[in-house]
Amino acid sequence: MNFPTPEAAESAFYAAFQTRNLEAMMAVWANDDSIVCIHPMAAPLDGRAAVAAGWRSMFEAAGQFRVHVEIAHEIRETTQVLRIVREFLVIGRESEPRPPILATNLYRKEGEGWHLVLHHASPLQVGGTPATRTPAAVLH
Amino acid sequence: MNFPTPEAAESAFYAAFQTRNLEAMMAVWANDDSIVCIHPMAAPLDGRAAVAAGWRSMFEAAGQFRVHVEIAHEIRETTQVLRIVREFLVIGRESEPRPPILATNLYRKEGEGWHLVLHHASPLQVGGTPATRTPAAVLH
Repeated sequence: MNFPTPEAAESAFYAAFQTRNLEAMMAVWANDDSIVCIHPMAAPLDGRAAVAAGWRSMFEAAGQFRVHVEIAHEIRETTQVLRIVREFLVIGRESEPRPPILATNLYRKEGEGWHLVLHHASPLQVGGTPATRTPAAVLH
Repeated sequence: MNFPTPEAAESAFYAAFQTRNLEAMMAVWANDDSIVCIHPMAAPLDGRAAVAAGWRSMFEAAGQFRVHVEIAHEIRETTQVLRIVREFLVIGRESEPRPPILATNLYRKEGEGWHLVLHHASPLQVGGTPATRTPAAVLH
């Protein structure tokens, strides 16, 4: 499957995530083993087999949820586009989203299509003030 | 300052981090406002002024520490190199490193030199098994 823009690939990524559709999810990723997926707090998953296994486990464990995404930052190059987004998940019948997840998504153009090569997701502590943290907490 | 390889830029980055040298730190970053720095759990800092302010605050708050870095994954393109590393910090007189931080570092080649354009650092929960997490914890 070819996505004409990074935005199209990103929409397909979050649609596959929300519908827990593994085939659609893996169609968004580049078709080579350079890909890497980092779920929050977890070690990197390298290559298509590991990335697919990670999503399969997650989809099997997850109940119904909705995800809303906001762009926070973008770096556009000719054949690579980096998008940093905030993911807001609303789980089950909850009315409020969970604290956001921050994700760095890197897309690569190959031929006429764009695919995902990196997804690095991590918790975002709302209202966190890293400037005032001390080394005793999280230094960096 | 020009770094001949992404590895040279990365070494300079962690040397500047460890020595809390703001000038050396900012020399590693690309000289434009597309840069973005994400400290663990914190919101993205966009552009040179915000990135510098973040490091200044952190350097002022931090005591002595050492940092050891291990490469976990790499994606090499002609003019961009992505390196995912584990950062191990040993703080003050502690003998053991803190739990690792996972960082995605993206370097861009401009002219003959490589510079950092993205640093996304996040906590890595050692031994974490994302596959078994339930939506009630961290879904994704």
